[in-house]
Amino acid sequence: MSMIEMGQRARTAARQLARAKTDQKDATLVALADRLAADRAAILIANAQDVAVAQASGLSPAMLDRLTLNEARIAGMATDLRNVSTLSDPVGEIFEASTLPNGLAIHKQRVPIGVLGVIYEARPNVTLDVAGLALKTGNAVILRGGSETLNSNRALVAVIQQALQESGLPAAAVQFIDDADRARVTELLQLDQYVDMIIPRGGAGLHQFCREQSHIPVITGGIGICHLFVDASADLGSAVKVIYNAKVQRPTVCNALDTALVHRAIAAEFLPRLVDQLAPAGVTFRADVSAQPFLTNDMRVSPAGPDDFDTEWLSLVLGLKVVENLDEAIAHIAAHSTAHSDGILTRADAHSARFIAEVDSAAVYVNASTRFTDGSQFGLGAEVAISTQRLHARGPMGLRELTTYKWVVIGAGHVRP
Amino acid sequence: MSMIEMGQRARTAARQLARAKTDQKDATLVALADRLAADRAAILIANAQDVAVAQASGLSPAMLDRLTLNEARIAGMATDLRNVSTLSDPVGEIFEASTLPNGLAIHKQRVPIGVLGVIYEARPNVTLDVAGLALKTGNAVILRGGSETLNSNRALVAVIQQALQESGLPAAAVQFIDDADRARVTELLQLDQYVDMIIPRGGAGLHQFCREQSHIPVITGGIGICHLFVDASADLGSAVKVIYNAKVQRPTVCNALDTALVHRAIAAEFLPRLVDQLAPAGVTFRADVSAQPFLTNDMRVSPAGPDDFDTEWLSLVLGLKVVENLDEAIAHIAAHSTAHSDGILTRADAHSARFIAEVDSAAVYVNASTRFTDGSQFGLGAEVAISTQRLHARGPMGLRELTTYKWVVIGAGHVRP
Repeated sequence: MSMIEMGQRARTAARQLARAKTDQKDATLVALADRLAADRAAILIANAQDVAVAQASGLSPAMLDRLTLNEARIAGMATDLRNVSTLSDPVGEIFEASTLPNGLAIHKQRVPIGVLGVIYEARPNVTLDVAGLALKTGNAVILRGGSETLNSNRALVAVIQQALQESGLPAAAVQFIDDADRARVTELLQLDQYVDMIIPRGGAGLHQFCREQSHIPVITGGIGICHLFVDASADLGSAVKVIYNAKVQRPTVCNALDTALVHRAIAAEFLPRLVDQLAPAGVTFRADVSAQPFLTNDMRVSPAGPDDFDTEWLSLVLGLKVVENLDEAIAHIAAHSTAHSDGILTRADAHSARFIAEVDSAAVYVNASTRFTDGSQFGLGAEVAISTQRLHARGPMGLRELTTYKWVVIGAGHVRP
Repeated sequence: MSMIEMGQRARTAARQLARAKTDQKDATLVALADRLAADRAAILIANAQDVAVAQASGLSPAMLDRLTLNEARIAGMATDLRNVSTLSDPVGEIFEASTLPNGLAIHKQRVPIGVLGVIYEARPNVTLDVAGLALKTGNAVILRGGSETLNSNRALVAVIQQALQESGLPAAAVQFIDDADRARVTELLQLDQYVDMIIPRGGAGLHQFCREQSHIPVITGGIGICHLFVDASADLGSAVKVIYNAKVQRPTVCNALDTALVHRAIAAEFLPRLVDQLAPAGVTFRADVSAQPFLTNDMRVSPAGPDDFDTEWLSLVLGLKVVENLDEAIAHIAAHSTAHSDGILTRADAHSARFIAEVDSAAVYVNASTRFTDGSQFGLGAEVAISTQRLHARGPMGLRELTTYKWVVIGAGHVRP
C-alpha cells in the first residue's frame, strides 16, 4: 500500500472514529485486552524472531531488554488498555459555554485531532500504548516503529485490527508501516493532507528530523535538562532527599535531575553533605568553579567542562554550581534549561512565588522532585508524550491533549447586524 | 539591525514583558492611545507619503482605501486600544487545579507564548491592533507589514516604542522590519530560536509560503469556503434571511457564505424564492445540475463549473446545490469545506444534533448566519486571527489564544516512590 493510500484510509477511518460513542470505544479497548491475552503465543513467537535478529546484530543489552516481550509484559499491556477504558472520554466535552447578549448560545466542544503519525523506536509496548490512547480519543493513527520490532509490531497490529473489526470499528483506525525502509518515515512526514499531528518518541535527533522534514505540526519534547535550586532557606535534610530522588530514582529518563544550583549561604554545609549522600548510589559530580572550593580533594567530584551544564546526562552524573542569589539561579535556568522541569527548594514564600512567576518551564516545582513530570503522576491517567514546545500542549500530554475543539453556535434565525 | 539581532532583542523583551503586571500593561495601552492622538499629524504625513506612492503605482481603489489613514481612523485605533486595556488579562489565570492523592498541589497557569512574528499586508491599522493584543498578553512581536505601508508603519511603530519606553517597558517588545526586501520575510520565518509563533494575515498564498518556509508553528486560517444547508424542516422565511445575511452583508470576508445546499423536498419552493430575494442585492448564482431544474430560464443563474464548489468567492456569487438528505449535505461539506464556518437551518432537533456531531468545522452553526465567526461577535473582545488549523486554537483567536500554560507543582519535600 502506498503511503498516500494509507493516509486516505486513515482519514476515512478518522471520520468514522470521531462519531464512535464512548461505550463502543471502551468496549473495543477491553476486547483488545482480551484478544492480546488470547493471542499471546503468536505475539511471543513474532517477538522471539525480532530478539534473535537483534542478538545476532549485537544490539545492546538495554535495547534488547526494551525489545523483549514476555507473558508478564503482555499482561501489563492488557492491564494498561483496561485502565484507559476506565478513564473519562474527553471527546464531546463542552466548555466555555455562554449565551451572548444577542441570544446566540455558544460553546466549545472537544473533538478528536484526526490522524496522528507516531514515530518511535525499539519498545513494542508503545504500539499498544499509542493505539489505545488514539482509539480512546477517536483519533486514527499511523504507526512507524523501529526496524528491530518489525515482526512484533506486525503481530500486535494484526491483533489490534482484528479487535477493531470485531467491535465494528474500521481496521484502518490503526495502521502500521510494515517496511523498514527509512524513506517511509520521510513520506509519512510529508502527508500534510492526511496527517494532522506528528508525535516523535525518541531522541533529539528524531525530533529535529521531524521538524525539518515536515510541515505537519510536530510535538517536540522529551529532552530535559532539569534543575533544582537549593535556596538559603531550604530545609537541607529535605533538599538532599529530593535531589537524591530526582537524580537516582531513574536516571535514564527526561525528568531526571541534571544540575543542582546551591545558594552560596548554605553551600559550605550543603555541598559536602549532598556528595556524601549521593555518591554511595553511584553518582559522580561535575562542579563549576563556583562549587569547587567547597569540595576540594574530593575524588568523586570533577571540574565541569564547558558543555556540561548544557548536557542532558541520562545517567548518574550531577552538575553542581553555587549561585549568589535567586536571580542568578533563575538566569542560569533561563540560559541552560530545556524548559522541561525545574524547581526550587525553599521555605521563603516570596522566593517560591518569584521562581514560579519567572521560570518558564513546562513544569515548575516548589519543594518536590522533578521526577513527577509524568502523565500518570499528574493524574492524567495516561501519557502520549511530554511536550517542551509552547503551542497546543506543554508538559505531560494525556487524553485531553489528543483533542482539539470546535465552536458550536446555536441561534434562532440570527443574522449579523 | 540583523534579523538575528532583532530576534535576540525580542526574546529579551519577551522575558521582561512576561513579568509585567496587568496594571502596567493596561496603563501602557492607554498611554499609547493618548500618544496616537497627540502624534497624529506626524502619522498622517507619513501615511500621505505611502498613499502618494501607491496612487502613482496604480494600486487598486480598494487597496488604497485600506492603506489610507485619517483623523477618524486614528481615533478608531485609539479607541480599540482603550477597549483592549479593559479586557481581562489571561496571563496568570490558573486552571485545572487539583491536589493529588500524595498531597502535591498542581495547577496549570497561563503564560505568554513568547515572541510572535506577524506578517501582513496593506492595512496600517493591523500594526496597532497586533501590537495592542501582543502587549496585553505579554508577548513580544516582530511585525512585517506590506511594502506599501512602510512610512506609515515606521511612524506608528515609533509612537508605540515611545509609549513602551515611557511606561517602563522595553521598546523591543514591538519591533518592525523596516525594509521592503522580501528576503527579510524568509529570514523571519527561519528565526526558530527566537520566534515561537508565526501569524500570517493575508491570502492563501502567504499562508502556504509561511508553512513551507518555516519550522516555527504557523497559525493558518482565514480561508473560508462556507456552507449553509437548508433542511426540509427549515423555516423558509428565516432561511432566506439568514442566507441573505451570510452572503450579502459583507461578501469580501472569509466568513461569508459560498454555497447553499437545499433539501430536495423544499427545493421547488425555496430556490426560486432565494434567487428572487438575493438577486436584487447583486447576487449571481452558480447552480449544480441538481439545482438547475428548479431554476430554468433564469438569467441570474449560471451552471456551476467543475471548480465552483471549491472556490472561496469573496464576492456576490453563491453556489446552489440540491441534496437528497442530511447525509449528502454533510458529505458535500466534508468534501468541499475549508472547515471554517458551516451551518444547518432546520427545525428538526435530531438533524441539528447530527450536523453538530458530524460536521467538523472551526465553527458549526444551527439557525444562524456564518458571518458571526469573529472574535468580537463571539465575545472574545478582540481577534488576532481566525484559525482553520486543528492544533492550539480553532476559529477566532482572542487574548487567551495568544497564551500557553505551564504546570506548577507545589510539594513539601515530595519524592517519587
